[in-house]
Amino acid sequence: MSRPLTTAAQGTEAPLAPAPLAPLPRVMIEPVVAAALREDLGRGGDVTTNATVPASAQATARLVAREAGVIAGLDLAALAFSLVDDRVRFEADLTDGQPAAAGQQVAAVTGPARALLTAERVALNFVSHLSGIATATAEIAAAIADTGTRVCCTRKTTPGLRALEKHAVRAGGGLNHRMGLDDAVLIKDNHVALAGGVAAAVRSARQAVGHMMPIEVEVDTLDQLRELLEDPVDAVLLDNMTPAELAEAVALVDGRIVTEASGRITAQSAPALAASGVDLISTGWITHSAPILDIGLDIAR
Amino acid sequence: MSRPLTTAAQGTEAPLAPAPLAPLPRVMIEPVVAAALREDLGRGGDVTTNATVPASAQATARLVAREAGVIAGLDLAALAFSLVDDRVRFEADLTDGQPAAAGQQVAAVTGPARALLTAERVALNFVSHLSGIATATAEIAAAIADTGTRVCCTRKTTPGLRALEKHAVRAGGGLNHRMGLDDAVLIKDNHVALAGGVAAAVRSARQAVGHMMPIEVEVDTLDQLRELLEDPVDAVLLDNMTPAELAEAVALVDGRIVTEASGRITAQSAPALAASGVDLISTGWITHSAPILDIGLDIAR
Amino acid sequence: MSRPLTTAAQGTEAPLAPAPLAPLPRVMIEPVVAAALREDLGRGGDVTTNATVPASAQATARLVAREAGVIAGLDLAALAFSLVDDRVRFEADLTDGQPAAAGQQVAAVTGPARALLTAERVALNFVSHLSGIATATAEIAAAIADTGTRVCCTRKTTPGLRALEKHAVRAGGGLNHRMGLDDAVLIKDNHVALAGGVAAAVRSARQAVGHMMPIEVEVDTLDQLRELLEDPVDAVLLDNMTPAELAEAVALVDGRIVTEASGRITAQSAPALAASGVDLISTGWITHSAPILDIGLDIAR
Amino acid sequence: MSRPLTTAAQGTEAPLAPAPLAPLPRVMIEPVVAAALREDLGRGGDVTTNATVPASAQATARLVAREAGVIAGLDLAALAFSLVDDRVRFEADLTDGQPAAAGQQVAAVTGPARALLTAERVALNFVSHLSGIATATAEIAAAIADTGTRVCCTRKTTPGLRALEKHAVRAGGGLNHRMGLDDAVLIKDNHVALAGGVAAAVRSARQAVGHMMPIEVEVDTLDQLRELLEDPVDAVLLDNMTPAELAEAVALVDGRIVTEASGRITAQSAPALAASGVDLISTGWITHSAPILDIGLDIAR
Amino acid sequence: MSRPLTTAAQGTEAPLAPAPLAPLPRVMIEPVVAAALREDLGRGGDVTTNATVPASAQATARLVAREAGVIAGLDLAALAFSLVDDRVRFEADLTDGQPAAAGQQVAAVTGPARALLTAERVALNFVSHLSGIATATAEIAAAIADTGTRVCCTRKTTPGLRALEKHAVRAGGGLNHRMGLDDAVLIKDNHVALAGGVAAAVRSARQAVGHMMPIEVEVDTLDQLRELLEDPVDAVLLDNMTPAELAEAVALVDGRIVTEASGRITAQSAPALAASGVDLISTGWITHSAPILDIGLDIAR
Amino acid sequence: MSRPLTTAAQGTEAPLAPAPLAPLPRVMIEPVVAAALREDLGRGGDVTTNATVPASAQATARLVAREAGVIAGLDLAALAFSLVDDRVRFEADLTDGQPAAAGQQVAAVTGPARALLTAERVALNFVSHLSGIATATAEIAAAIADTGTRVCCTRKTTPGLRALEKHAVRAGGGLNHRMGLDDAVLIKDNHVALAGGVAAAVRSARQAVGHMMPIEVEVDTLDQLRELLEDPVDAVLLDNMTPAELAEAVALVDGRIVTEASGRITAQSAPALAASGVDLISTGWITHSAPILDIGLDIAR
Repeated sequence: MSRPLTTAAQGTEAPLAPAPLAPLPRVMIEPVVAAALREDLGRGGDVTTNATVPASAQATARLVAREAGVIAGLDLAALAFSLVDDRVRFEADLTDGQPAAAGQQVAAVTGPARALLTAERVALNFVSHLSGIATATAEIAAAIADTGTRVCCTRKTTPGLRALEKHAVRAGGGLNHRMGLDDAVLIKDNHVALAGGVAAAVRSARQAVGHMMPIEVEVDTLDQLRELLEDPVDAVLLDNMTPAELAEAVALVDGRIVTEASGRITAQSAPALAASGVDLISTGWITHSAPILDIGLDIAR
Repeated sequence: MSRPLTTAAQGTEAPLAPAPLAPLPRVMIEPVVAAALREDLGRGGDVTTNATVPASAQATARLVAREAGVIAGLDLAALAFSLVDDRVRFEADLTDGQPAAAGQQVAAVTGPARALLTAERVALNFVSHLSGIATATAEIAAAIADTGTRVCCTRKTTPGLRALEKHAVRAGGGLNHRMGLDDAVLIKDNHVALAGGVAAAVRSARQAVGHMMPIEVEVDTLDQLRELLEDPVDAVLLDNMTPAELAEAVALVDGRIVTEASGRITAQSAPALAASGVDLISTGWITHSAPILDIGLDIAR
Repeated sequence: MSRPLTTAAQGTEAPLAPAPLAPLPRVMIEPVVAAALREDLGRGGDVTTNATVPASAQATARLVAREAGVIAGLDLAALAFSLVDDRVRFEADLTDGQPAAAGQQVAAVTGPARALLTAERVALNFVSHLSGIATATAEIAAAIADTGTRVCCTRKTTPGLRALEKHAVRAGGGLNHRMGLDDAVLIKDNHVALAGGVAAAVRSARQAVGHMMPIEVEVDTLDQLRELLEDPVDAVLLDNMTPAELAEAVALVDGRIVTEASGRITAQSAPALAASGVDLISTGWITHSAPILDIGLDIAR
Repeated sequence: MSRPLTTAAQGTEAPLAPAPLAPLPRVMIEPVVAAALREDLGRGGDVTTNATVPASAQATARLVAREAGVIAGLDLAALAFSLVDDRVRFEADLTDGQPAAAGQQVAAVTGPARALLTAERVALNFVSHLSGIATATAEIAAAIADTGTRVCCTRKTTPGLRALEKHAVRAGGGLNHRMGLDDAVLIKDNHVALAGGVAAAVRSARQAVGHMMPIEVEVDTLDQLRELLEDPVDAVLLDNMTPAELAEAVALVDGRIVTEASGRITAQSAPALAASGVDLISTGWITHSAPILDIGLDIAR
Repeated sequence: MSRPLTTAAQGTEAPLAPAPLAPLPRVMIEPVVAAALREDLGRGGDVTTNATVPASAQATARLVAREAGVIAGLDLAALAFSLVDDRVRFEADLTDGQPAAAGQQVAAVTGPARALLTAERVALNFVSHLSGIATATAEIAAAIADTGTRVCCTRKTTPGLRALEKHAVRAGGGLNHRMGLDDAVLIKDNHVALAGGVAAAVRSARQAVGHMMPIEVEVDTLDQLRELLEDPVDAVLLDNMTPAELAEAVALVDGRIVTEASGRITAQSAPALAASGVDLISTGWITHSAPILDIGLDIAR
Repeated sequence: MSRPLTTAAQGTEAPLAPAPLAPLPRVMIEPVVAAALREDLGRGGDVTTNATVPASAQATARLVAREAGVIAGLDLAALAFSLVDDRVRFEADLTDGQPAAAGQQVAAVTGPARALLTAERVALNFVSHLSGIATATAEIAAAIADTGTRVCCTRKTTPGLRALEKHAVRAGGGLNHRMGLDDAVLIKDNHVALAGGVAAAVRSARQAVGHMMPIEVEVDTLDQLRELLEDPVDAVLLDNMTPAELAEAVALVDGRIVTEASGRITAQSAPALAASGVDLISTGWITHSAPILDIGLDIAR
């Protein structure tokens, strides 16, 4: 295998504490938060709050997890409040990637009451969506925690939110697959068919790309895998295989390249797949279909 | 009730065939589709396809529903392909709002093979996400189809996609609630508390807004409802009430204002709530937690 | 009338002091102010000031109303200065919606002299344009202040400035009509003709929209009004009627729906129209043709 | 005078037919038209039209001048329709800069009825605003047509619309002054005071700028003018002078530099000022306070 | 070496004809071309052309290479013309990546003369800048064409133009290194120092990133290289080494990982470095300091 | 000459110390710096730094000129760091336009180590590119410092960076020519041919533009110059003339208009051209082909 994954058995290495998740720089998140606020404020602002809440009213609010899960997106929530009124103070009790119990306070927000109410929905939309992804990821990660297999995501993300959703996957303990079409080669069945075979596709790809761009090939059968291994690339995507097929595939690969299983994987099905010894299982479900984590805002006056 | 909903009993009116869903103008959707493509293309474009697929290869692909559901977002899928290469021809078999059976072809796409593969993921991300919302909406709508109650959405939408998700709700047969903070007044508990009571909040709102902005008030108890009805507004949001409480609320209102029930409503719980006779049930679940409708692209060469 | 306007006689209610006008959040106004500055700075910045004024020079300037009027847009002026140099201090003597006498100081600005001169024109362009709208609105409002009628605006606004101009109308004591095409239904003659009559148009609209979207219908004659009242909507736009016709229309409506008069209304013609008892008179003139309020910047060195 | 204006007496030159006004390239106008449409369409599109007008309905509409004036902005109107639906055909009867009589058809628009109604307001907002500016400009130009003086505009334009409004001034037969802060030097009283006198300001400016950037100086008195003429620049702005003072100023200048009069100039006051022989009179009124030219859309079905 | 570069000796593989360079999709290049046009058109458009060239004049122009070089950026030039006027026809004689001789026609452009003149400078600015990069790249590539070494670029690109400049490097026969900070790990001296050594840095990186993100480490000495090879990553950057040191490094690596040499490399110094057998030499010079390729526009009337 | 350049002999005027270069306002530079950061951060941020550098690590870094040159772009570098993390402190030792010796510290940057490493490349890309332009300009300026001739730039700038590159030219002691197509008239051979001669082109231009827009005409021969001088404009561009021809041209002009020489001018060829007495020599080389000034970041821990 070209570059051993840490979670794969690394005999001589002591286990590492996972590094704390790095926040996304403000320059990356400000446009999406500002756009979300403008989408909600429309052409008239928060008419309800402006009509009913005195401008001078101050308030404190608590972001509370209504159910247990892993938190992600706190920086976006904080930014939503401060972009509405920079006098709002946001104090987080947790950081992205940490678990919250049901009923636990996640953050406290203090400032003009109008700003708290105006930014509330946008802040919650971000943090509940991203925490939903982190939680779904963490559930799968937990289900396979006693194996050497790790969970990773796909390009099946919500349009416009890829950087945020990839971050949420990391918050949930998952790894990121490609960030887009341009940062790695993933040769799928259609490419193979149009290129005239796996070998031709691989040769063309090697010719085209530099050394900082890995090459992975999708195979559906063990025969295709055997063909690929005659001239191995960096990784193989084993699509829609049974646990038994995966185990045989892992044996065939024998550590030479990274093995990745995919195909409608859930927390339920993951352990059986991981038992095969694959390095990774990838799933679009955690980004495209995870329900939100219910997080609410309680105003304490 | 100030403006009778058509689905509420309208004695003398013949039932209307629902109007076909109007598409969103291209000027509204092009920025979000272009942004999604740029997000995926990154700084290098589709390296895999460019390396493996001949520029001259032509192909035809079929968008196929892998499971049954209601389709939404076909215009966005079509636009994704044409923004990558304007020679691609997209022929839709259905229009937004129509149901697809499992395995049914939704659209056919013909053109340069590279363009089909490059735009595939973005096109599918849009159509599967929006069809998921339409399908979830339609499920609740179907569950209460034999009542006078209709389902509507909330502002709990994915940041940046509100116009699209509101459209998907309409595709699923639901109604839209507020589009944002600026197009209607919705007085919630926090507003009431900060304004000094329901009556004060309502008076302030009436003073502030014009005749094209409806006023709705959220109440948690029947006592609050009774207080509200002394000086009724356009609608009341009955939050987290049991079916029995809702029925009593509907009786109290007696058709004077629109009644809306909310609180963690699903297709399972909806019929019992609708049996109370409320005009509307609103739910954030259909926009923030609906899983995608699985739609794939099969390339026929 | 579905939702009684506060200014219409409300017997039992004590008169309310109008709520102070809420400012637009910075996240709404910063893009338009920044764009205006970039439009003026072009590709080279303020060559005159940079060539003639020492970088170290400090100055204080006074925004002065050269004529009497109602002020609007102070936040935009303040932002223009601070976006050029965040060391500028802007101290407003008034807030949006307050009247200024001829010669009265509206605000004082202190900071680097270069920044004051560079931002001057953009700041004044905003505040004089928006104060012109507020002043024109206030003139009509004053002319009908002893009636129950209120003035409101239209969608005839300057492209790109709708949110600001709607705010300026509120500053002048007017109400806002629709903010755009998407937040209320306004059925005009062309819609009626293409829908096959008023009744068909109204039925279609009711079918399509949710409870948070009011429906108004434009009528040109009393006969059309009578037809409309057989199945009343939320409001009626009485277009180009004489005061006598309006009075008859108001009598026909008899408080069941909101009545709005339109058609080339000015401060001169407004009182006669208001005498009819209509709830609202709407006019595009206040946004599309109001002259600026002359506001200048006097530098005190 | 450094560069003789053509309209000033040019003895030996035959009079030129004015060149037809060049349209602004689409790449310059598309962003502002698209933004205006998005501002109006909001998050839901044209709900009224979509609910009441059949998708298949075709229509023809006429843009008609309700009053006489000079037309400007037709390209923006055309673009508004085509950005909503590219099947709309827009046929202009006039081009920017041509006069329309009251009641005259300006353009015909044919296509899907929905698109005509959806784009109508944005199209009219552009063309009526810009035609208002062109008409106001043309009125002043006509008032001084028998003199050698020409009218020009200022930087007192509507934020975000400078390029369009400068174009409208040209359509009305006016000349453009500076386009922004960066394309010419205009030394005003505040610059003079902070630079330590006219001579110092002029010397600094000459040092700083290249040969493609003209220098103009504002003076309030004839004494200041005399001082300026000791070391003349390209043009002098004679601010708030009486016709008699202007005549004396023109005599002092004696053709050596361009003379420009400013200060609350209207079509009424312009002829007396022009009689002084100044080369130009400049006015902000034509851009910041001109009422719209009333242009309507008549749908012929 | 984890993934053998095709240009490195691949014994059993037949040599491949390089794949033709794929164009960047229009959705990627349109924003940058439109922005460049707007930057040049400013607030008034092309006043010279509009004043002097009749609107009806048609013309044909030839893009001609004034000196020999490799062409890149033709799509951007074509788009510049068509965004000014979509009636312009652009016929390319070459495609990106092909060489042009001095005096050779690169493309012919036909259409309204005004459009040709208005778009000329922007079109040439793109194609001459990008062809300059392609030519500089090709010069180094040619200098080492008889070795197994290939040239690649860095992140030292012109702000805002990275995707275009990376494309130009490919056009010149070079490979791309990282596209940005997010698509590969490159551990430099500062990272090592702050992480507490090479081994710690590598372990942390492996823990953090997925299998589609390669890891490269920069070393300055052979001792550092030896340390790295105890736990090898995907690639090593050998910074500022002499040809002799490089040769020793290559021998130490012995094909286990990719070797890359960097440090002020030019076409003159490249052959000596390549003789060491390194897989790649990388240089910022080709993107940040390459002079333009002189390409002009000759109008044939 | 219509407006004498200060550097041309001005007998009676004392020499002026050049005014310090004015910085570009933040509102002009923030979009381009933010875009450059987003381009580099991509969809995942700085994975290397986040994986290897502790979040708590503080560091100080020095921007050091690796070679002698004139500095430009420091504000952009400072902004790059602060947009990544607003806790970074940037202390400049020099200001734009000042020379740096090889090895000299240009600025010191202190703050979170991660932010320093993440912003490093973007900051250096700006400052090294712009300093390269300033240095190239200064070299030509120095070569002709003992003449009355000054160097100026052209519109041959990098797309998207014109305002910055024009600023860098000023930093190097050069003057700016036109900022774009809209701020001055420059009649070239193609315009002349399509207009039907120099005289016709000049007449048309005078008719079209106002007094704040200079007119320059390009001539290739002395005969063309003589024709132009019969009706002189503001400036003449003498293209590709020999020093002897230029001297004759300057004699013909005899101070009546500004003279500008152009045509592949370098620091080597400039003195001979300047000896002719032309007012200006203009060159695209300084913006489109100047190599960067090598500036590095040394982290001191």
